[in-house]
Amino acid sequence: MTGDAAPAPERLSLNQITLNRLSLSQASEACARAGIGWIAPWRDKVADAGGAQAAAKIVRDAGLRVSSVCRGGFFPAATAEERRARIEDNRRAIDEAAALGAPLLVLVSGAAPDRDLTAAREMVADGIAELVPYASQRGVHLGIEPLHPMFAADRSVINTLAQANDLADRLASPSVGVVVDVYHVWWDPQVEAEIARAAGRILGFHVSDWIVPLPDVLLGRGLMGDGVIELRRLRTAVERAGHGGPIEVEILNQHIWDSPAREVLGAIQARYRECV
Amino acid sequence: MTGDAAPAPERLSLNQITLNRLSLSQASEACARAGIGWIAPWRDKVADAGGAQAAAKIVRDAGLRVSSVCRGGFFPAATAEERRARIEDNRRAIDEAAALGAPLLVLVSGAAPDRDLTAAREMVADGIAELVPYASQRGVHLGIEPLHPMFAADRSVINTLAQANDLADRLASPSVGVVVDVYHVWWDPQVEAEIARAAGRILGFHVSDWIVPLPDVLLGRGLMGDGVIELRRLRTAVERAGHGGPIEVEILNQHIWDSPAREVLGAIQARYRECV
Repeated sequence: MTGDAAPAPERLSLNQITLNRLSLSQASEACARAGIGWIAPWRDKVADAGGAQAAAKIVRDAGLRVSSVCRGGFFPAATAEERRARIEDNRRAIDEAAALGAPLLVLVSGAAPDRDLTAAREMVADGIAELVPYASQRGVHLGIEPLHPMFAADRSVINTLAQANDLADRLASPSVGVVVDVYHVWWDPQVEAEIARAAGRILGFHVSDWIVPLPDVLLGRGLMGDGVIELRRLRTAVERAGHGGPIEVEILNQHIWDSPAREVLGAIQARYRECV
Repeated sequence: MTGDAAPAPERLSLNQITLNRLSLSQASEACARAGIGWIAPWRDKVADAGGAQAAAKIVRDAGLRVSSVCRGGFFPAATAEERRARIEDNRRAIDEAAALGAPLLVLVSGAAPDRDLTAAREMVADGIAELVPYASQRGVHLGIEPLHPMFAADRSVINTLAQANDLADRLASPSVGVVVDVYHVWWDPQVEAEIARAAGRILGFHVSDWIVPLPDVLLGRGLMGDGVIELRRLRTAVERAGHGGPIEVEILNQHIWDSPAREVLGAIQARYRECV
């Protein structure tokens, strides 16, 4: 940890998957009680809440704002028809983000339908390009989130911040930027250089930690401070690159899901102060 | 798979950990019976065999040659004393490789003793630099093997071929090169560019496969053809970069370890022809 100060408490946002067992209504109320002012809903929870308009009312009534919606993407597919269906689903995700007042739709790119990573990466570029006008008209930004290389085969063929930056360069739209999640990028020797390169287009910043040994690829993320990620170093790098917005805590962890929400939020607030 | 031909059968080498339950003597005899001409012993098995001289006799008596010794490295440590001890252990590994007639010692760099990846990466560079004269005098090459980023916290802070190439550039010694293991680098959008950049210094090439979903981070590697890696594309890229030496099959997989050696070697030979 460096000598830098803790981030402002009002920047803390709960990514809803951190309390995955709770409905949007329950998670919003828990945030409000804890004094957390932001939430990032997942689309399945928005649907469970009765759709985007109902979800927007729930969040608003709890006095919260929406930092992002998770998630669009999953562009590569084996057939043109299936790729078209995915684009349509992304349009619905943009509509939901707009209805929720979310400035950002987080994009998880998707995996290759076969062994050809190069072709799949082109499908991602094509898919985002097609969404740009639609997103732009609705005031929703598209955030390309690189996922850790261990997800290259099943969740995302965009695996480094360099790739996300290359893609954002290529798409060259004010509606397209990148999302930096420490769990996915912490290991990268180029991470600080690529964060600097992303200046002005970092649309989201997600924190958690990398526990050693890793309990599980998907559900083994740790609470900030329980692992090896230099969180404050990355947070200050992201701030130097112009990001001063919400800091989302996104922890996929079965043990945390099984714990009482109030305890989890208390621990998150403490670790946010101490470690982020 | 491309239309390129299968690699020459005489290039197939068994990395000994693929038959981890067998002694060096048993593994060597199994290779000889199967018509496999190369083996890459691990140091624990060399020790179990009575040391490098005894191990060399076992391999020679079986009519095999040694493609590499696994493994040196693990340079970063919290204290100067411990780092010194690791260097000494690497000198012993070089001695063993020389005694075994191995042209190559594979280096797995090691993890950071704390959260500071940058400092740990410097310790790796310093450690290899210190070994170069010793290795050079004994005719043993040092192969920097980047490990998949999911091992950044516990096994290696060298996680991309770009990093390994940068390190080899910096050390600028004919005794230092890189080892390309498809399991660790397949996901990397820069992998083909970095293989080309490594022309003339690719000292080893390891094959296995990435199964979806990944059964286990450490022990979930697949038999070639059971996963998503474009093996032939990577093999031909490595050949274009000048590597025509042994192709080591290195599969860490509990199920394979529990299978009869003869079956495993037969499957490896078939998949080597079909998929590598």
